[in-house]
Amino acid sequence: MGKSVLFFSMSLDGFIAGPQVDVKNPLGKGGERLHQWMFENVSPANAQMLREPAERVGAVIVGRRTFDVGVDLWGDTPYPVPSFVVTHEKRDPQPMKSARFVFVDDGIESALAQARAAAGDKDIIVMGANTAQQMLKAGLADEIVLQIVPVLLGAGSRLFDYIGNQPIELKTTRVLESAAVTHMTFEIAK
Amino acid sequence: MGKSVLFFSMSLDGFIAGPQVDVKNPLGKGGERLHQWMFENVSPANAQMLREPAERVGAVIVGRRTFDVGVDLWGDTPYPVPSFVVTHEKRDPQPMKSARFVFVDDGIESALAQARAAAGDKDIIVMGANTAQQMLKAGLADEIVLQIVPVLLGAGSRLFDYIGNQPIELKTTRVLESAAVTHMTFEIAK
Repeated sequence: MGKSVLFFSMSLDGFIAGPQVDVKNPLGKGGERLHQWMFENVSPANAQMLREPAERVGAVIVGRRTFDVGVDLWGDTPYPVPSFVVTHEKRDPQPMKSARFVFVDDGIESALAQARAAAGDKDIIVMGANTAQQMLKAGLADEIVLQIVPVLLGAGSRLFDYIGNQPIELKTTRVLESAAVTHMTFEIAK
Repeated sequence: MGKSVLFFSMSLDGFIAGPQVDVKNPLGKGGERLHQWMFENVSPANAQMLREPAERVGAVIVGRRTFDVGVDLWGDTPYPVPSFVVTHEKRDPQPMKSARFVFVDDGIESALAQARAAAGDKDIIVMGANTAQQMLKAGLADEIVLQIVPVLLGAGSRLFDYIGNQPIELKTTRVLESAAVTHMTFEIAK
């Protein structure tokens, strides 16, 4: 069975987007700084980490807000695999170029079950801070892959917020250094 | 001239202490998890990072709250060097075993100037989240040395909070991996 993975570029102060996220600024004000490592002076380690999600992903779980601001930008599903949108709204599936969006209105566990069925042995990538937080809080996430960006944004959307106050133990399984970003992978203890 | 350094063990979700910090729980509820790496199965890299602050420190700046909960625990200044307590209260210096506490009631810049004069070529270690935040916000910090602990605490005192919303660029200057903790050093761009 594949793993459910939170895959995020995060500032050292914990933000995965700047403030005022909307369709025009899907990463919020100043948030594009967090994705700069993908485009400028890409080192071999960074190139590997850019390829990795596409190689391992079998399904995506994406929050409604991230879907709303992302869908036009992507012009497709975020990866060419079935993508499950966690929402409160009943809505028919939306076919895209390479796969389809399925709207799940009965909670994160249902979204995960459907994503697992679609992903087979491959992994499930979780997109959107709120959805990632729900996964963490419910003990449903298996792995966290972070690109730590050497900047303090000071404001925006925090990845690790609203996850309850029960400590969640992690195991550091990989650290890859580069000038632009430090890649850190954590397994979540069960 | 030495550097002003923020030296903290921090959970992956950004906490340097758990909630409810007081004299009985100077690291807050559950916060002792953050210092576990100092005591259990200490690897050579971790031992080096434990020695390093003592080797480089020439003065300390410590917040009033950290002083209040720490002074009995330390039974001395936190390092054997002059230690400047940022406070709103006028108070005479307090001699300890190896050095003295000096109480600075006219702000963080004054504390830094006095600490620099005391430290000479050595570095100044900044203790306490609030004081670290004041240093960052005022552009007075030179370096951040973090021990990233693989745990999500979910609650407590965040290191990077209340630092304004102007991005602060950093440069990653060192990453040292260990099972218990990942050491990361950042230079603050000026």
